[in-house]
Amino acid sequence: MKFSPRKEPVIYVVEPFGGSVRRHMPALPLIYADDAAVTRGDGIFESLLVRGGKAANLQRHAQRFCDSARTMNLPEPPMDKWEEATRLAIADFCGDEQGDAKCTWTYTRGRASTGRPSAWVVVQPIEETVLEQRTHGVAVMTSPRLWHVAEELPAKTLNYAATMAMLRMAREKGFEDLILTDPDTGEILEGATSTVVAVKGEKLRTAAGRGILPGTTQAALFAHAKEKGYRCKAKPLTVEYLEKADSVWLVSSVRVAARVTRLNDKKLKAPDNVDVIRDLIDAALGA
Amino acid sequence: MKFSPRKEPVIYVVEPFGGSVRRHMPALPLIYADDAAVTRGDGIFESLLVRGGKAANLQRHAQRFCDSARTMNLPEPPMDKWEEATRLAIADFCGDEQGDAKCTWTYTRGRASTGRPSAWVVVQPIEETVLEQRTHGVAVMTSPRLWHVAEELPAKTLNYAATMAMLRMAREKGFEDLILTDPDTGEILEGATSTVVAVKGEKLRTAAGRGILPGTTQAALFAHAKEKGYRCKAKPLTVEYLEKADSVWLVSSVRVAARVTRLNDKKLKAPDNVDVIRDLIDAALGA
Repeated sequence: MKFSPRKEPVIYVVEPFGGSVRRHMPALPLIYADDAAVTRGDGIFESLLVRGGKAANLQRHAQRFCDSARTMNLPEPPMDKWEEATRLAIADFCGDEQGDAKCTWTYTRGRASTGRPSAWVVVQPIEETVLEQRTHGVAVMTSPRLWHVAEELPAKTLNYAATMAMLRMAREKGFEDLILTDPDTGEILEGATSTVVAVKGEKLRTAAGRGILPGTTQAALFAHAKEKGYRCKAKPLTVEYLEKADSVWLVSSVRVAARVTRLNDKKLKAPDNVDVIRDLIDAALGA
Repeated sequence: MKFSPRKEPVIYVVEPFGGSVRRHMPALPLIYADDAAVTRGDGIFESLLVRGGKAANLQRHAQRFCDSARTMNLPEPPMDKWEEATRLAIADFCGDEQGDAKCTWTYTRGRASTGRPSAWVVVQPIEETVLEQRTHGVAVMTSPRLWHVAEELPAKTLNYAATMAMLRMAREKGFEDLILTDPDTGEILEGATSTVVAVKGEKLRTAAGRGILPGTTQAALFAHAKEKGYRCKAKPLTVEYLEKADSVWLVSSVRVAARVTRLNDKKLKAPDNVDVIRDLIDAALGA
């Protein structure tokens, strides 16, 4: 079963320094005009998969969220409160139903007039196209990343506008997704909102390179796959490597895994073990 | 006279495709949790100086705003409505008083649930520190820009978080502002939120280089200064050139002009003609 894409989101506001959480009606505005999220995209977020009535891969998301906050010089988020808001929002949204949903944590530098960060959790239906891409895969264009954020630990910030502009361009050209490459070396970096994983026999590879956001789903997959006997490694990846792999996947929290069915002009055929790999990724998140 | 920094802002909401404008109470939230400004910093803005009861340099801001919208693939803003909202907000904020204030136009890709852009105008007091920097100048650190946006026409987007992080770092080191340099050539690009202008005799120079946002104040200054007999040019500028100039200025809409009093470890002395240059910039905006 799945939730109607028109089902109303559930929003819980988190007190940024701890304290109570409270439900916010989605039909009402939430953010003030002087919030740094609005005035300069200054904040961080995490997207989580809700499956079986709970947030999947929660600890890796919590860890990355805290890492992003530290990188961005935001006060450390009280994770017990974020997790409480997440549980409440999921319970309100899902009730007794067990479909997949999407949970987003947003944490901004907050209002100029108060200096207090803004923080909230949203649980909402997953977009139809995302669910379709899980099943049917995605045609992907590679494109050099013409910007790069600070060389240190990349944070998952709200500054996605450049990526989104590239994604719109890819869609105009008939693709569904985008893999960014290093403009100097041409090597693979990451998907627009996902981590690239290539499968070749018993080997799983993800890209190593400048400014790649560590993927929580890829980390869960590698941890689980290692236990199952796969050899898993992050190392530089080329477009040619992807073309010759058994299968190429864009893995991310909510879409989970979308197989790359076309890379630029080259069709990538489904391998015999496509369901084995898909089950492996699902199992990694189901733990 | 100047406005109290605690005076309440005036906000006018603009219908993104034209239609009425309406005042919004700043004590109420304005933006919904699913607005692209909040979820990925996807929007554009302009900051304008309000002086003598009207928006200074309005046509250059309107032009850049439309250029940014086009670059970002946002629907063309109905500028008559933006200007109407600006006039109303200024009138409400200033009343009969003539002090400087700050006006901001914000235009976002809008709500995921409606697909409608969000658009509003704010008029508010100028921060005290900004006014002080006009008078006392700024100590400036140079730092390579470790990210760069699309190579084409830079748009004035809400993606300022990386710049703001660099600015916080500069402040921790005892500086008040930042000049970004090209990481490959070391040449001057621009200030964190301003255009660099160097004065040497009758010559005004600004930087030419990759990804510099065209400055509206610098354009107004150059147009006016040319009429007054100055030779004005954009060409590659080095740190050494700035060190040897008569004076170096960070020009921007609201702060107007802050003289660079220190560049990294080097003190830059005030030239004899400091007031002449300051008057020249003010006159350029007063037209």
